[in-house]
Amino acid sequence: MRLKLTLISRTLTSLKMNFELHPQLNRDCFFIGRLDLCQLLLMNDSQYPWFILVPESAGIQEIYQLNHAQRMLLQNESCRVAQYLADLFKADKMNIAAIGNVVPQLHIHHIVRYRTDQAWPSPVWGKYDAVPYHPERKVELITRVRQGLDLSI
Amino acid sequence: MRLKLTLISRTLTSLKMNFELHPQLNRDCFFIGRLDLCQLLLMNDSQYPWFILVPESAGIQEIYQLNHAQRMLLQNESCRVAQYLADLFKADKMNIAAIGNVVPQLHIHHIVRYRTDQAWPSPVWGKYDAVPYHPERKVELITRVRQGLDLSI
Repeated sequence: MRLKLTLISRTLTSLKMNFELHPQLNRDCFFIGRLDLCQLLLMNDSQYPWFILVPESAGIQEIYQLNHAQRMLLQNESCRVAQYLADLFKADKMNIAAIGNVVPQLHIHHIVRYRTDQAWPSPVWGKYDAVPYHPERKVELITRVRQGLDLSI
Repeated sequence: MRLKLTLISRTLTSLKMNFELHPQLNRDCFFIGRLDLCQLLLMNDSQYPWFILVPESAGIQEIYQLNHAQRMLLQNESCRVAQYLADLFKADKMNIAAIGNVVPQLHIHHIVRYRTDQAWPSPVWGKYDAVPYHPERKVELITRVRQGLDLSI
């Protein structure tokens, strides 16, 4: 078991070596921390608690392009993040989506939705211009989620 | 291994017993066939090749509410369907999403997108009214995908 985990870990490390976050995700989001496969970002739009998981694997645009171990990791990490966010923010619904029509690098939105949010029941994309976070609220939120999910940085 | 598969199969069967497709999915879509966990539907909107996977598990609204075995099955089935559709339709991008703000029963959209489709690069939801399929094209498409994915009915 330990050997298997070591092999998976080494394989992931080698796949991560050429990974670079897409410039638009870098511009639009804040880095929160890392899970085994993905990094977690906070979208700089204070209208919704909007988080993004990005598998640190170079050249991937679709979930099915990940290998089997990565797909299973992604599902685990996505569920862990979604459940944590749903509890923390008392979500009415989570919206989970891999769209990528504008930014092709695989990234999976995890958006907390409320029946009272301004875009409800529509999806949030392209609905309203982003409203950036106040710096203090941003730091508070990043710290909270980083600690809550025990993420590495 | 055979015992484990039998146990998983029995558990899935018992979970499926109380499952009923949400009336709105029933109205808006055509049934194509079944995988181990999900049923596959064709959305009655000929503007995009738009398919929906619905885990046949009663009372589930979020992916993280599925048990571990179901989550792994869902990831496998989603990747299999997405890759098949991307190849068949020569997609520019697949859009994969669990939204559920209107229909709370967990269902995962698998939408083939083209840079030339009328909604590109926006997501398709709420963009244009559905354009129903001609009956012949519908039957042809359902038959093709049912056979291509070797689905049970």
